[in-house]
Amino acid sequence: MNLGFIGLGNMGSAIAGNLLKDGHQMLAWNRSPEAVGRLVALGARAASTPAEAMRAEVVFSMLANDEVVEAVIVSSGALAAARPGAIHVNLATVSVAFAERMEVLHEQRSVAYVAAPVLGRPDLAAAGGLAVLAAGAPDAVEKVRPLLALVGAHTWPLGERAHLANVVKIACNFSLASMIETLGEAGALAKAHGVEPAALYEVMTNTLFAAPAYKTYAALIAEERFEPAGFKLPLGLKDVRLALQAGEAKHVPLPVASLLRDHLLAAIAAGDSEKDWSALSQVAFRNAGL
Amino acid sequence: MNLGFIGLGNMGSAIAGNLLKDGHQMLAWNRSPEAVGRLVALGARAASTPAEAMRAEVVFSMLANDEVVEAVIVSSGALAAARPGAIHVNLATVSVAFAERMEVLHEQRSVAYVAAPVLGRPDLAAAGGLAVLAAGAPDAVEKVRPLLALVGAHTWPLGERAHLANVVKIACNFSLASMIETLGEAGALAKAHGVEPAALYEVMTNTLFAAPAYKTYAALIAEERFEPAGFKLPLGLKDVRLALQAGEAKHVPLPVASLLRDHLLAAIAAGDSEKDWSALSQVAFRNAGL
Amino acid sequence: MNLGFIGLGNMGSAIAGNLLKDGHQMLAWNRSPEAVGRLVALGARAASTPAEAMRAEVVFSMLANDEVVEAVIVSSGALAAARPGAIHVNLATVSVAFAERMEVLHEQRSVAYVAAPVLGRPDLAAAGGLAVLAAGAPDAVEKVRPLLALVGAHTWPLGERAHLANVVKIACNFSLASMIETLGEAGALAKAHGVEPAALYEVMTNTLFAAPAYKTYAALIAEERFEPAGFKLPLGLKDVRLALQAGEAKHVPLPVASLLRDHLLAAIAAGDSEKDWSALSQVAFRNAGL
Amino acid sequence: MNLGFIGLGNMGSAIAGNLLKDGHQMLAWNRSPEAVGRLVALGARAASTPAEAMRAEVVFSMLANDEVVEAVIVSSGALAAARPGAIHVNLATVSVAFAERMEVLHEQRSVAYVAAPVLGRPDLAAAGGLAVLAAGAPDAVEKVRPLLALVGAHTWPLGERAHLANVVKIACNFSLASMIETLGEAGALAKAHGVEPAALYEVMTNTLFAAPAYKTYAALIAEERFEPAGFKLPLGLKDVRLALQAGEAKHVPLPVASLLRDHLLAAIAAGDSEKDWSALSQVAFRNAGL
Repeated sequence: MNLGFIGLGNMGSAIAGNLLKDGHQMLAWNRSPEAVGRLVALGARAASTPAEAMRAEVVFSMLANDEVVEAVIVSSGALAAARPGAIHVNLATVSVAFAERMEVLHEQRSVAYVAAPVLGRPDLAAAGGLAVLAAGAPDAVEKVRPLLALVGAHTWPLGERAHLANVVKIACNFSLASMIETLGEAGALAKAHGVEPAALYEVMTNTLFAAPAYKTYAALIAEERFEPAGFKLPLGLKDVRLALQAGEAKHVPLPVASLLRDHLLAAIAAGDSEKDWSALSQVAFRNAGL
Repeated sequence: MNLGFIGLGNMGSAIAGNLLKDGHQMLAWNRSPEAVGRLVALGARAASTPAEAMRAEVVFSMLANDEVVEAVIVSSGALAAARPGAIHVNLATVSVAFAERMEVLHEQRSVAYVAAPVLGRPDLAAAGGLAVLAAGAPDAVEKVRPLLALVGAHTWPLGERAHLANVVKIACNFSLASMIETLGEAGALAKAHGVEPAALYEVMTNTLFAAPAYKTYAALIAEERFEPAGFKLPLGLKDVRLALQAGEAKHVPLPVASLLRDHLLAAIAAGDSEKDWSALSQVAFRNAGL
Repeated sequence: MNLGFIGLGNMGSAIAGNLLKDGHQMLAWNRSPEAVGRLVALGARAASTPAEAMRAEVVFSMLANDEVVEAVIVSSGALAAARPGAIHVNLATVSVAFAERMEVLHEQRSVAYVAAPVLGRPDLAAAGGLAVLAAGAPDAVEKVRPLLALVGAHTWPLGERAHLANVVKIACNFSLASMIETLGEAGALAKAHGVEPAALYEVMTNTLFAAPAYKTYAALIAEERFEPAGFKLPLGLKDVRLALQAGEAKHVPLPVASLLRDHLLAAIAAGDSEKDWSALSQVAFRNAGL
Repeated sequence: MNLGFIGLGNMGSAIAGNLLKDGHQMLAWNRSPEAVGRLVALGARAASTPAEAMRAEVVFSMLANDEVVEAVIVSSGALAAARPGAIHVNLATVSVAFAERMEVLHEQRSVAYVAAPVLGRPDLAAAGGLAVLAAGAPDAVEKVRPLLALVGAHTWPLGERAHLANVVKIACNFSLASMIETLGEAGALAKAHGVEPAALYEVMTNTLFAAPAYKTYAALIAEERFEPAGFKLPLGLKDVRLALQAGEAKHVPLPVASLLRDHLLAAIAAGDSEKDWSALSQVAFRNAGL
């Protein structure tokens, strides 16, 4: 198929690479050209503007947040350049409110809008192992389904309104942050009584909590391996803020998310901005004087 | 071996049954005689007092909380009746402070004290699938290891001081309560935006959080199946209180546990005392008017 | 002096009235004309646009929030119509970030910008009893000081950067919300034990907490007199959000503000949007089943 | 009148001194004899045991907490030595549950039990300026009223069951702790934006919050004057714990109290045990990196 790809950070590059390997044609754009170069080496063609990439039959974008999507897709004129009948697959984690706005803007242009945020880190993306959360008009989702099968190992259909996939993504990331905080508090409690956090986590992650996320994060925390960051702490704060905002829009109190917000701020105030968001766990240890 | 067993509630009966099936002799005591009768039918002999059961070579007890252990094992004179060199395996979830006190009391009587709290519900206990958290004097733990292998599928050694196993058990139960609260908040957020909590939980429990505890509890919450209770809500409050007390003893702030305490109280105030503690999740839905 | 006044809600009308009584000339504008009519009856002249009112020597504005100030003062072209050397006194509670932006925009137009948010409710405003929190360029503040003395009983100078007055205003409103929540929790604790909240509040407000805010709000709560609203609950949520945002900008965790946010949302979810924000106190009573 | 006085710490000594000045006879007991000596110099006689002091017509006690009252008044045999018809006035801050137990124990001995916890610090006690919260059987309260008028400036009658006065005392101390936390968070927010906390507090304590407690504590916080401690931080934790326990007994969630508990623990973990409980405010500043 004739694809566009906009946004080639760690995640975007890995996903675009998988699409290329399957033999699709691709016009790729990125703010800095180095990442485009790497993709061209894999068979893509470089687009000189987002609008050029946006003229493809199916366009993927993987951009940092609402503001960047707004700037690159909307304000730049790219969306206006898309052809009617095209499909835009937005892989990014954006706010629910912005996703709703994007649905409207795309409908006005007769461009199908599919939200397909993903669960997983860059290494999983490269291995094609992401989970894809997909929502949007059924025929558009159906059409891109073979492509999404290249993006991740499994696609979860989440409804006909694109923003629903963002709701689920935001709820998942909130749950991850809550897990990190809980591992921190449980670990601090154990350590204060003379049990190594690693011993506690070994029990937890081999019994009740024998899940991929627990195994990954408990290891990072037990080894205090917060750099290099897989997902920086301020990005975690952004995602918790997305949860709080989505809650506020429907008057849903989220006291755990509020607590996470405050601890992420404390972590940033303590100088941990460049660390992985699993460093959120250290707030609990520090508050206990450990 | 010549065993004693004190406390035949759902968990105790299931565990004692597994020990009997392996061919051990057992003197069993329970406050109400019906449960003893069922065990006698499986080959045990009835003890007329806790002290009588306590005279065995290895004595297991599975009692409700600190107060009941204090009454049945200590105040009743049972511990004083134990023979020097015997081993007492306490399977119950007791406070860290009480466990430390039990260590001292047993040492004064030259009785080995092994703490072996378990992870899992009664059905898992009957199937021999529990996880056993064991701590105590190494030779005593070593000696009862074959018996613990009948109690559960795996035994986790947690140190030479018995109370360390209680620390880990309390940290695990705190983590479960945090998971329930998080599933509640995430589910309320999803529902308010038009995503069925079951759809969210399906994604979560098949990807990031594909763990036994998440699968069990997410199903209970999605189906609002809170009765009959596997573990009643006030017991959950008791366990969170154990975490808060253990934290306070070492000045470890536990803000998530504090939040859980308040929501468990709100659930009780709303009339949910007889429900499973997974009903804690409903506080989040109610607070959002859902 | 030759004054402009933009925004004639309850607070604005009361303040503008006091300025008129002192003999100043005034061009007044409001979105709905009725309020202008009442002011014209007191001697003001009606401005047909915000820009017209903005051409005065000193212009006061009292508008609802960032968005309304942005629309009426900036986007409408009013600020562009102000004469260089004029002074704009913004009485509204706006965000710190927006106040900082306004400082820049006014400086670009050579218009002095004084932030003068006020403490007190409409009845106090009519009586000239408000407290005025003033910040901005010293000469501008000095020049409007006689006018501010008509706005309130006392003016507190808070620095040379206008947004500092907003910081203080936001911190004060956060403190008020915290007081309401605390009165609610303390009252629920008392009531559950058989002490009438009114009896508790009588002790508090005549001893440790013998302060105007405590007396006013404790009376509202004790009598459950939440309508008509002096300050509606969603406005309280807005102000707590301003505190959280100002905190986030400087990575200041504000756990009490986070808790207030969640309880204000719960109050709205429970249907209390039209009530006075003192109804926040009822969340604590409801959560206790009282 | 023929008085007994048990417990001569800073508060007890000051109160006993005021009773002596009015010409009453007094048998005084204290664990360490120095404080008794000072009171003997003012006209009291030394009791050699609590029981001896307890034989007076009206006995005041001012002891540290539940455990000390239990040991000195009950376990020591003092209560058993009291004469039927005597009145015991307990000035201490004890738990609601313990106060209820004391009511029963005194009734069994035909001794009237009046709870009369006080609001105020030692300097206020010496000046006779305390507020007295009194509850108990009406005739007993009536009889000691002239004596309570020597203890403090005003007596607040709070009902016929003694423990009700303790409920109010605990609610007041919780409110004080909440005020300190709020001053800390508001101050940290201000400071982070360049406003001196002292400037914020000056506005607050001269307008909305012009109350004795605010003035006292805002000054301590603004000047960071936490030593010597008027009321040590761990005592504040004790009082917040009393609120949490009283809430738990009636399933009243107290999320602000929970948050205070965690911050008081963090303060202790940070090494502030010997400081005044107003140092709780510093947790907010530290969490913001200030």
